[in-house]
Amino acid sequence: MAEETENIQFELTDDLVNQVESLIRLNRDKDLKNLLDDFHYADIAEILDELDLEEAMYVIKLLDSETTADILMELDEDNREKVLRNLSTKEIAEEIGELDTDDAADIIAELPQERRQEVISQIEDEEHKAEITELLKYDEDSAGGLMAKELVKVYDTWTVAGCLRRIRGQAKEVTRVHSVYVVDKQEKLVGRLSLKDLVVAKNEQKISDIYISSVDYVHVKDHAEDVARVMQKYDLEAIPVVDDDMKLLGRITIDDIVDVMKEEAERDYQLAAGISQDVEADDSIWKLTKARLPWLLIGMFGGIGAASIINGFSDAMEKFPALLMFIPLIQATAGNVGVQSSAIVVQGLANDTIDGKIFSRLLKEFALGLVNGLAIAAIVLLISHFAFKTSYYESLTICVALISVIIMAALIGTFIPIFLDKRGIDAAVATGPFITTSNDVFGIFIYFLIAKLILGF
Amino acid sequence: MAEETENIQFELTDDLVNQVESLIRLNRDKDLKNLLDDFHYADIAEILDELDLEEAMYVIKLLDSETTADILMELDEDNREKVLRNLSTKEIAEEIGELDTDDAADIIAELPQERRQEVISQIEDEEHKAEITELLKYDEDSAGGLMAKELVKVYDTWTVAGCLRRIRGQAKEVTRVHSVYVVDKQEKLVGRLSLKDLVVAKNEQKISDIYISSVDYVHVKDHAEDVARVMQKYDLEAIPVVDDDMKLLGRITIDDIVDVMKEEAERDYQLAAGISQDVEADDSIWKLTKARLPWLLIGMFGGIGAASIINGFSDAMEKFPALLMFIPLIQATAGNVGVQSSAIVVQGLANDTIDGKIFSRLLKEFALGLVNGLAIAAIVLLISHFAFKTSYYESLTICVALISVIIMAALIGTFIPIFLDKRGIDAAVATGPFITTSNDVFGIFIYFLIAKLILGF
Repeated sequence: MAEETENIQFELTDDLVNQVESLIRLNRDKDLKNLLDDFHYADIAEILDELDLEEAMYVIKLLDSETTADILMELDEDNREKVLRNLSTKEIAEEIGELDTDDAADIIAELPQERRQEVISQIEDEEHKAEITELLKYDEDSAGGLMAKELVKVYDTWTVAGCLRRIRGQAKEVTRVHSVYVVDKQEKLVGRLSLKDLVVAKNEQKISDIYISSVDYVHVKDHAEDVARVMQKYDLEAIPVVDDDMKLLGRITIDDIVDVMKEEAERDYQLAAGISQDVEADDSIWKLTKARLPWLLIGMFGGIGAASIINGFSDAMEKFPALLMFIPLIQATAGNVGVQSSAIVVQGLANDTIDGKIFSRLLKEFALGLVNGLAIAAIVLLISHFAFKTSYYESLTICVALISVIIMAALIGTFIPIFLDKRGIDAAVATGPFITTSNDVFGIFIYFLIAKLILGF
Repeated sequence: MAEETENIQFELTDDLVNQVESLIRLNRDKDLKNLLDDFHYADIAEILDELDLEEAMYVIKLLDSETTADILMELDEDNREKVLRNLSTKEIAEEIGELDTDDAADIIAELPQERRQEVISQIEDEEHKAEITELLKYDEDSAGGLMAKELVKVYDTWTVAGCLRRIRGQAKEVTRVHSVYVVDKQEKLVGRLSLKDLVVAKNEQKISDIYISSVDYVHVKDHAEDVARVMQKYDLEAIPVVDDDMKLLGRITIDDIVDVMKEEAERDYQLAAGISQDVEADDSIWKLTKARLPWLLIGMFGGIGAASIINGFSDAMEKFPALLMFIPLIQATAGNVGVQSSAIVVQGLANDTIDGKIFSRLLKEFALGLVNGLAIAAIVLLISHFAFKTSYYESLTICVALISVIIMAALIGTFIPIFLDKRGIDAAVATGPFITTSNDVFGIFIYFLIAKLILGF
């Protein structure tokens, strides 16, 4: 048993991929198997993501279904779809037999509607089949969609010794035992025990005497992001899921929550960057265009709106051409301030650190805008006066406009996310397209309005 | 023991805060204690974050140090700093005595240099003191800075029965037992066991016969974000930390990694929004200004640069005033495309899904820019021709400029993050200020250059 311990720093090199490809080409199955046996399934998945479909299928057919089931879960979503399309329903059912119920249900949910039933009907283990079918009922963004049926459950009437004996049976099917859940005769969740508590307790003690009755849980219909927030706040590694009657339905483990958090962070990041669908750098040009064009169109209409405003003030522009030079400055500043303000509010909303007091929040942004605006305006005043020789009134216009635009952008950037959040709309949508574009247009409008007031055209 | 199970949906209401405040005002210590005893320490921390410092200190002095130590860890960082300032070094040492070594070291690291030594010297448990002192040596962004000394360790020469007996002793001090680490006589990590394996094994078996020798680990100097990536990739809930000689130094648990991931995501999000320091919505105006003004200044200089370009082409502008109207459109589009391209690249780099092939990446962005550019240009062509009555050559200028600017922005947005990453600079810095500003300026310059070529002024 005393082999080398594994170093985790797996590195996907071109050499390795080439080696795998050449072993496939030469049909050297035994060498290929030996090579891949040394790797973690997550690493093999990384290798397969680099191969073409035919090669990937070759490897999948070569390895045993216990390994390939885990590999499947780790593949890039697009590649998994392709691989699944190349497997028969019977083969998929075999893979699924090796997976935990939550992963199995996820795989089935990814299949086209018409294949789902066929795959399910070919799962051999009847209990596994029934559990997977149950999980498929729940929305994928809910606690039910995240949970697995695998858990270790004991009745409050058992003794520690009896418990340990039965747990030995249950635990074999559960990859990781975080908590032992205690239920009463009606299968209602009444408490929990850690394996540690059991190991430390005396054999003859009764479960009802040693269990901890304060147990956190989530409802099967709770939203995935709420589950994530709760598990993170209370540093939980697993949480039981119950229905309306407190009946224990399943449990959610932290590794699934880590994935939820990561997806959430990536989605928010992309939304803020004006990308409307979940995409990756290696997606097709068509998919990337679909995700990117919508914002560009919103921005385009904003630009057309700005053009109309400038067009409307064209007489004035002829009289004060210097003002035109500063349009990009006004626009960039409005956009930047808006993005900053909204990003802070969106994060505050996500972390629940923003309370309902919109007014005091706006007041603070007003003050902040004033401070930033005065600082920027002072510098621009000097530069415009000395470098661009703007007149006294033109300089005044630019400075007053800058301060106003910064304050307005800060207020809009703060107000819109809070407003959307109150309406139940995801505030993260607001940071990108809407804020930037509306601030661009508003900013230019305010600029000309102030110019009109000060220069009186 | 059969109380009610806890519902996790704690909600921080004004009523609750008012109730706590009034109990403090009336010195009703016993009622206050009873009220707070029902809450999780993370919830009490949320309540304290709403109170003023004097009230928070009142509650902290009232509760026992076991609870307050946990509460301290959950407080908002600014509030924790204030509370610590109001505690004597002896009181802090008492709180620290209740914490795991990793949390304890974090608290001490937050103290001003001059108080640290004093607090450490007052920790009563000599072993705890030595362990905390060791942890303080490591960089906070390294595996050493994340790990705790609390772990369950067995020697490969022990039997299962002997193991279980000794684990009962060790486990009392370890909040959660994920894995039992197996070491040899030289304290070198040789493998692992799960508690489940121990529970399932027979009493007389030897550890050396049952342990799993393939154990993932990280080096004490590995970067925190790399540790996070590894634990996430391999779905680990804890990972041991070793030194150069494979000696077992500590372990990192997934809850700490969840915090690292969250901080990383928030920082990237803020960087992309042009916020240069870690801030929250309720920070002071001064702190927020320090985080926000730098980008506004970069943007301002970009705006001044754009003004210079426009100024340089002022003769042409007099001849073709219609071109001026479309400056905001050009600028907004350049900014938007740049942000989109860079966001996708930055995420790809973070997830290691982008390989070194810069050229093929740029070629793809070129194609993508061409597709998006043609779509946008076609719409703008129609609008500018019919709504703004631009001449044939003016329309042509605008369209060619739009396509060129979109392609250029996509290329810059792709190239800069990859370039920074190759130089070892965090690519996330690139998405915000630099990309937007440089694309604004370049975009306007290209616009006028193309105008000059087509309109020939």
